Amino acid sequence: MDYYSSQITKLIEVLERLPGIGSKSAARLAFHLINMPEDQVEEIAETMVKTRRDIRYCKECCTLTDREICPICGNPERNHKEIMVVENTRDLAAYEKTGKYNGVYHVLQGAISPMLGIGPSDIRLKELMKRLEKDVDEVIIATNSSLEGETTAMYISKLIKPAGIKVTRIASGVPVGGDLEYIDQMTLLRALDGRVEL
Amino acid sequence: MDYYSSQITKLIEVLERLPGIGSKSAARLAFHLINMPEDQVEEIAETMVKTRRDIRYCKECCTLTDREICPICGNPERNHKEIMVVENTRDLAAYEKTGKYNGVYHVLQGAISPMLGIGPSDIRLKELMKRLEKDVDEVIIATNSSLEGETTAMYISKLIKPAGIKVTRIASGVPVGGDLEYIDQMTLLRALDGRVEL
Repeated sequence: MDYYSSQITKLIEVLERLPGIGSKSAARLAFHLINMPEDQVEEIAETMVKTRRDIRYCKECCTLTDREICPICGNPERNHKEIMVVENTRDLAAYEKTGKYNGVYHVLQGAISPMLGIGPSDIRLKELMKRLEKDVDEVIIATNSSLEGETTAMYISKLIKPAGIKVTRIASGVPVGGDLEYIDQMTLLRALDGRVEL
Repeated sequence: MDYYSSQITKLIEVLERLPGIGSKSAARLAFHLINMPEDQVEEIAETMVKTRRDIRYCKECCTLTDREICPICGNPERNHKEIMVVENTRDLAAYEKTGKYNGVYHVLQGAISPMLGIGPSDIRLKELMKRLEKDVDEVIIATNSSLEGETTAMYISKLIKPAGIKVTRIASGVPVGGDLEYIDQMTLLRALDGRVEL
């Protein structure tokens, strides 16, 4: 049944396609949009379409950007001999927010997942290997600490090490501020294995 | 700092304006949109703009609709002598979903709230009074069971009763399936006051 007018129902339907938005949230969003000034709705709609159209992968590091070369790869003050490998652009942003990392990145746009049928050729590994032909000091693997992330890290390290390039993996352990009581056993064992001398 | 490209940051910013969407959800939505097929993004954007532009208030009941007269008011099989007063179109839809109410509605587009400075002239009361000049058997007040909803219900009943029209209020009490243990005291007292003989 069409409880609303068909146009409102259509809007709710298209909003429901977005991740994490169920039918109730979609209805709330739809009515909020209907009550917004028309020019603001147009601005949101135009930004969505324009961003989708203009975004491409950086020719160097494969991150999502609106230029040929992203601002980080194009910055001569960054250390281009240190490459941090991440799964996606959000992970890149997470490290950028720390403000402490001065190297560059390589964005795989995914992780190896036999479960989902994603193999090494489905992520941006070829592009990474090509970058390593240049002079690189260290590759820091910062894929997620999930099964897929670990598989990917292992695969990449086996691929790169023979070339004599230093390969490191970000530490896995108890998060800062974490209460041991609430932390899963896998993480506790990792933290124990990775203990450092004081 | 612009961790993403400026265009992605802009998209995240406009999505954050929506209700219930914080910076993390906005980033997730933005990247989802970027990875969607371009025509689907265009469809969502167009639907948003078109709906916002075409939606108006029904000339009869003031609900949000895309025609002069909404499908419910235009349906001759509904009982036009029974008017249910609700705060907004979503509340109307909630009762429509029950499939059991055959009267028509009046949508106030708000509720009286001295706290927010919303007075009787700020909601669609004038339009309701005008409808009552015609032959009406009963006005069912179905505003929310909140302070604003109760205030509005009281105000409307005082306004209508002198005209000799039957005014009722939907029952307040324990929801079906509700466990007394978890229900607030106000609701328990309401349920007690409103008890019916078996």
